[in-house]
Amino acid sequence: MTEPMSRDQFLAELGNLSDRYWGTHPFHRRLHAGELTEGELRTWAANRWYYQSMLPVKDAAIISNCPLPEVRRAWLPRIVYHDGTEEGTGGREYWLRLCEALGLHRTEILTESHVVPGVRFAVDAYVTFARTRPWLEAVASGLTEMFSGHLMRQRVADMLAHYPWISADALAYFTVRIDAVSDEGRQTVDIVARHAVTRAQQDAAIAALSFKCDVLWSMLDAIELAGKGRT
Amino acid sequence: MTEPMSRDQFLAELGNLSDRYWGTHPFHRRLHAGELTEGELRTWAANRWYYQSMLPVKDAAIISNCPLPEVRRAWLPRIVYHDGTEEGTGGREYWLRLCEALGLHRTEILTESHVVPGVRFAVDAYVTFARTRPWLEAVASGLTEMFSGHLMRQRVADMLAHYPWISADALAYFTVRIDAVSDEGRQTVDIVARHAVTRAQQDAAIAALSFKCDVLWSMLDAIELAGKGRT
Repeated sequence: MTEPMSRDQFLAELGNLSDRYWGTHPFHRRLHAGELTEGELRTWAANRWYYQSMLPVKDAAIISNCPLPEVRRAWLPRIVYHDGTEEGTGGREYWLRLCEALGLHRTEILTESHVVPGVRFAVDAYVTFARTRPWLEAVASGLTEMFSGHLMRQRVADMLAHYPWISADALAYFTVRIDAVSDEGRQTVDIVARHAVTRAQQDAAIAALSFKCDVLWSMLDAIELAGKGRT
Repeated sequence: MTEPMSRDQFLAELGNLSDRYWGTHPFHRRLHAGELTEGELRTWAANRWYYQSMLPVKDAAIISNCPLPEVRRAWLPRIVYHDGTEEGTGGREYWLRLCEALGLHRTEILTESHVVPGVRFAVDAYVTFARTRPWLEAVASGLTEMFSGHLMRQRVADMLAHYPWISADALAYFTVRIDAVSDEGRQTVDIVARHAVTRAQQDAAIAALSFKCDVLWSMLDAIELAGKGRT
């Protein structure tokens, strides 16, 4: 049996996947460089909505598969974060407001009329992963949070600089999320490092993070093509 | 297509299932009459633990299957109720304390060493139902809450009267749960009545409640036989 990696080595292996994160995707590069048209921004926001809307469902699947009450308790606030505590609150609501600021109507977002098949398939694959894989792998798939705080901070600065018609208010999803995602990222790393104790579990966690990078990347591939009117 | 029932008729049909609820099961009758041995009480508590321990998992499955944020938000406190907000709190903890008061060690509960196959199969069927059936049916299966407030109130009185070695403290699970279950029961009825709008949905809700009565009844059948040393 292969020996488990040390915690440091394990975390380094996970961190090595950062160049597979969607921060380096050509579409995100163009977004940050101010090169997207208003139409492309709308396509992006309307399609990413589908991802945002499925996050509480994905997190509930993790809780449903986890026999450890301490992990369930730790994971529960993520559902609250996205769904909010009442109508009109939460990450879900902030994303809808961003969509509206970009010129979309709430109804066309909620009916998912702009969501292209490639985005739907990628997001559904992520939810299915959370429903069907061991809870530790599903948690590990969320380790992209390790990489997202930095990207979101940059996004707010770049979008305000390059798209002057977008207000800071419209970007509340990101500004509010930056701190939360750093906390959640540390928590996720801690849970994964604590529970992935065999080499097989460590390898499965790395594979799960790799899978998640593929999910996000595929979303942007589909969004990029849709923005060009290719779908 | 068959017309949907009126709300009153629908609720009456659901209420008619009350005699299938486990309140009338012979084992519960003996429990309430003070006829159980200490050994039978321990068998009961240790086996019902498996049901208690799976409730948060079942509730998370419902949330994971539900596309409506308002229902997910309404359902979330049930997970918190059972898992508690930190170690040593929540319905789960109260049940463990009841087990200890009945002379069981926490470890033998947590390792599920007393859980008999019939109880495991019934509880697992309930969790599978929540994972695989439409969320509205899974919610409807929880309508046994309509019947449980009264039974729990009676249980506390009867247990204190008939088993003088059991303290009121030991029964905290029930005393704390009585109010919560009445509130939850009203909420569940409200959700089911609001969302089961076709006759097919109403019939499916009634079937779900019937199924849940079978789950609970089967648990007590298995517990009864185990208490007699038959397993």
